[in-house]
Amino acid sequence: MNRLQRYLPILDWGRTYDRAAATNDLIAAVIVTIMLIPQSLAYALLAGLPAEVGLYASILPLVAYAIFGTSRALAVGPVAVVSLMTASAVGELTAQGTAEYLGAAIALAFLSGLILIVMGLFRLGFLANLLSHPVISGFITASGLLIAASQLKHILGVPGGGTTLVEITSSLAANLGQINLITLAIGIPAIGFLFWVRKGLKPLLIRTGLKPRLADSIAKAGPVAAVAVTTLLTAAFDLGSEGVKLVGHIPGGLPMPVLPPFDAKLWLDLLGPALLISVIGFVESVSVAQTLAAKKRQRILPDQELIGLGASNVASAISGGYPVTGGFARSVVNFDAGAETPAAGAYTAVGIALATLFLTPLLANLPQATLAATIIVAVLSLVDFPALRRTFIYSRSDFAAMAATILVTLLVGVETGVTTGVILSVLLYLFRTSRPHMAVVGIVPGTEHFRNVRRHKVVTGSTVLTVRVDESLYFANSRYLEDRILELVAERPAIRHVVLMCTAVNVIDASAFESLEELNRRLKDSGVTFHLSEVKGPVMDRLNRTDFTRHLTGQVFLTQYDALCSLDPETAHVSESRHPKRRAMSTLWDGPEI
Amino acid sequence: MNRLQRYLPILDWGRTYDRAAATNDLIAAVIVTIMLIPQSLAYALLAGLPAEVGLYASILPLVAYAIFGTSRALAVGPVAVVSLMTASAVGELTAQGTAEYLGAAIALAFLSGLILIVMGLFRLGFLANLLSHPVISGFITASGLLIAASQLKHILGVPGGGTTLVEITSSLAANLGQINLITLAIGIPAIGFLFWVRKGLKPLLIRTGLKPRLADSIAKAGPVAAVAVTTLLTAAFDLGSEGVKLVGHIPGGLPMPVLPPFDAKLWLDLLGPALLISVIGFVESVSVAQTLAAKKRQRILPDQELIGLGASNVASAISGGYPVTGGFARSVVNFDAGAETPAAGAYTAVGIALATLFLTPLLANLPQATLAATIIVAVLSLVDFPALRRTFIYSRSDFAAMAATILVTLLVGVETGVTTGVILSVLLYLFRTSRPHMAVVGIVPGTEHFRNVRRHKVVTGSTVLTVRVDESLYFANSRYLEDRILELVAERPAIRHVVLMCTAVNVIDASAFESLEELNRRLKDSGVTFHLSEVKGPVMDRLNRTDFTRHLTGQVFLTQYDALCSLDPETAHVSESRHPKRRAMSTLWDGPEI
Repeated sequence: MNRLQRYLPILDWGRTYDRAAATNDLIAAVIVTIMLIPQSLAYALLAGLPAEVGLYASILPLVAYAIFGTSRALAVGPVAVVSLMTASAVGELTAQGTAEYLGAAIALAFLSGLILIVMGLFRLGFLANLLSHPVISGFITASGLLIAASQLKHILGVPGGGTTLVEITSSLAANLGQINLITLAIGIPAIGFLFWVRKGLKPLLIRTGLKPRLADSIAKAGPVAAVAVTTLLTAAFDLGSEGVKLVGHIPGGLPMPVLPPFDAKLWLDLLGPALLISVIGFVESVSVAQTLAAKKRQRILPDQELIGLGASNVASAISGGYPVTGGFARSVVNFDAGAETPAAGAYTAVGIALATLFLTPLLANLPQATLAATIIVAVLSLVDFPALRRTFIYSRSDFAAMAATILVTLLVGVETGVTTGVILSVLLYLFRTSRPHMAVVGIVPGTEHFRNVRRHKVVTGSTVLTVRVDESLYFANSRYLEDRILELVAERPAIRHVVLMCTAVNVIDASAFESLEELNRRLKDSGVTFHLSEVKGPVMDRLNRTDFTRHLTGQVFLTQYDALCSLDPETAHVSESRHPKRRAMSTLWDGPEI
Repeated sequence: MNRLQRYLPILDWGRTYDRAAATNDLIAAVIVTIMLIPQSLAYALLAGLPAEVGLYASILPLVAYAIFGTSRALAVGPVAVVSLMTASAVGELTAQGTAEYLGAAIALAFLSGLILIVMGLFRLGFLANLLSHPVISGFITASGLLIAASQLKHILGVPGGGTTLVEITSSLAANLGQINLITLAIGIPAIGFLFWVRKGLKPLLIRTGLKPRLADSIAKAGPVAAVAVTTLLTAAFDLGSEGVKLVGHIPGGLPMPVLPPFDAKLWLDLLGPALLISVIGFVESVSVAQTLAAKKRQRILPDQELIGLGASNVASAISGGYPVTGGFARSVVNFDAGAETPAAGAYTAVGIALATLFLTPLLANLPQATLAATIIVAVLSLVDFPALRRTFIYSRSDFAAMAATILVTLLVGVETGVTTGVILSVLLYLFRTSRPHMAVVGIVPGTEHFRNVRRHKVVTGSTVLTVRVDESLYFANSRYLEDRILELVAERPAIRHVVLMCTAVNVIDASAFESLEELNRRLKDSGVTFHLSEVKGPVMDRLNRTDFTRHLTGQVFLTQYDALCSLDPETAHVSESRHPKRRAMSTLWDGPEI
């Protein structure tokens, strides 16, 4: 039963579900539905799919998430970045507008769903950690720019294509002569209006006396207003016949259950993109869910979230939709509107289903330029250039990973961009830890404490070399440790003992272990004994599983002070009881470095 | 001048080169030459190349290394593992025995040389650190098994092929009916003799009164004896006409300068293998060179070693040879025989050149089975199964990387094997550090020290939660940190302050920094203030570049004791001066864990 509850969170919150919660969920669902209709249509277009596919992706997936998801406020459905990734992945295999294209998008959703479920069952949520913050942030900025650029053709009313920034802009430039001025006359005001709604309307409403929350909800309905007005104008003046591209006929029924095409080659081609979409979607979704949960001191379970999102994607696929994930803006709206349980998502699904049944005939005259405008305004808020500056100030190597992700995403493509970012940030991390900070230390007079000889007034003897290494020892830095210690010994012919002080060593892996053995042998060859001090419990436990201490020419000392007393009692004596103990303790952490 | 000396180490040791050193180098060169002749021929055959290519790869490369290398004892030339990798890489592109095959092997050497030189100039020797010890060890064990298996066909005198263990054994099984008994009658005794020479001859010679060093040198000449005896037997009884495969005619002249085929597609196909061969060859070579250098308290320069090996490979390519690197056995022989400078390598080159000019006619009757026997006996010493057990005992995750490397190398191939090992060991490391050890700590009564509440008798207050994290904070563990702390807070409703104790934190990267900011915001949302304590100097310097401390709801305390005095003076008081200070200090490191 407990296990069942873990995999079916609905059994948990469902038991205490009452009328008050249901009322709140219903209100939230109405608001999210209104917001989701234009978004679904727009993102489907961005993914290169018929508009109704966006609606299909906003019905069953929400029900599936309500059953399997753990976040109380997350609103799943089509989102911008995943739509762009879908367009890029499927566009490489087949042409937009064909049945194969739709089939591949459905297969992509199915495959992503399976991957997410498998990751959830095997608790592989850890893999999302490989996406460092600078890489995600850079990727989302670059995606925002790419998406905005890709929508400009709809604003200008020209044909165009391409998946990289260069392709998109050159395709726009080539077709600039064919600008449709009426389309432009819809698109530009729509963008202006939507920007104003975002920035200017809410403060205005508040100044006129509305409560902030209500003002916010009204402002979030801006895209609906733009859709309604431009649709009415288009219908009234028959702008479709003037060359304004419209959404056109949307099939009105509910989606029929479909199976994704089972084609081994197609699935193999989609495997890489599906994996990336899964991980990116998961990271995006989980960070929204966690932010919202923390506000109410609730918890989400990341591994169960994988299953929830996986179920949503499988549900999307079998109802003819494409990959979905938790969206940031709509989840915040859902939360602010008072959603209490995942049931709000199920009610939203009903709302979208009703819209699919009854509203679609009204949308035939909706200009594509309006949808493009909503996309442009939405994604430009994803673009975060100041993050580049902040990251540059904080860490050059994180900045390098971020800049590389942005450039490669813009110039080569979304998949290569993310992959480059991940590989680069792992390599940079390994590089950074491959040359750990190492300090020759001496004793602080009057204490039992040891500090860097370069930064502090400390005492050292001539026969004992004590080296502190400020990093766990593992394959990337084990050779450096060996080199560096041999170098230090080679520079000091009088040295008879080397003590490695392991206060900051949390792990010694097998490679570092071999290096320690090797170091011991080499130091022995040159007549120097090798000791360790202040080895942490778990590290020592592991060393004790081997015959390391039997090979070791020296000893393992509990404290560095013990080591000094035993190996060089004179130097240890010099430092003794010059100051009262209390004084020594208080200077303990005074240095700039520990 | 200094810069020139760095890139041309010969300018350094050359200035003090005298007659005594020259005599020692010459003696070493004679011994290494005798050892290298059969090895060169055998490894060329292993690489699928004509026997003379092995000799060509043992002339100019040695001269190049003498000029650019920094090790005084390293002997470069064809080695077993790199020969296997050459066969695997080139065999994928074209068939053995063709001119294209030789051309591709030459291009591979050229490309490896360029890669090594570029790595040396840009000081990218660090990349070799990605090969963890278990991966290298597993790879060499698997290569040894593959090589031995691939040579069995020569011992049995049957046709055969394949690059994976399954292919090789099934090809042997299929051809088992065609065993040539005379070949077998040469191969089996040769193997037996060579094993006996390795294990039994040296002790025997020592017992008869020879000095150990001389006994060792005589034992190392075993393969030459096997070659001489079997060649004479074959010639005397004309065994070639009985179906015994011979080395046959070897062109006698010195190698003519050649250029590798410049074919963009070929180079692109060879790029991956060339990179792997470069890195594996470098790792193998550097570890031998370092071991030998340490014995005389000498140093080698890894970045210059890259240039030295790179120059050797380019030299090999332009003289019609294939990829080379520093060999373990022959370097040890060179060292033991008294080589003092890289000039010994140049003298060896002269020896091989003379052999190429004058000895090759005598080798026409050398049975391939003899060469196969020398290879089998040599590579089986590379196979180290006990290392599997040792690694298993020491670390499960290192064992996993090692076992995967062995299995994939044997069953899929050498390139996939190494790559899998590298990726797996990086992922396992990231996984291990992604869930760092975190402990809730309390104060040890009578001291200013803080220990894990689960392992020690310590005092904690009800409003302050102090968490110590035993790992640097970076992208792989930043989300876990966030989760874990929020979880700890959610479990303790009375908590008003959280202190993160950073004694073991050597780095906070941009992802972890964002997590700390996020944690601060979320804790603020739930009415908890967030503090740091014992932040190391460099870490604090970096935090100070941002406005982190302005956002922080709490403070950054120099010591954890300061934090407790300030946030919960009562608990801090309880612990004061119950014991004399001295006693407290001596129990400081007594626990199983620090």
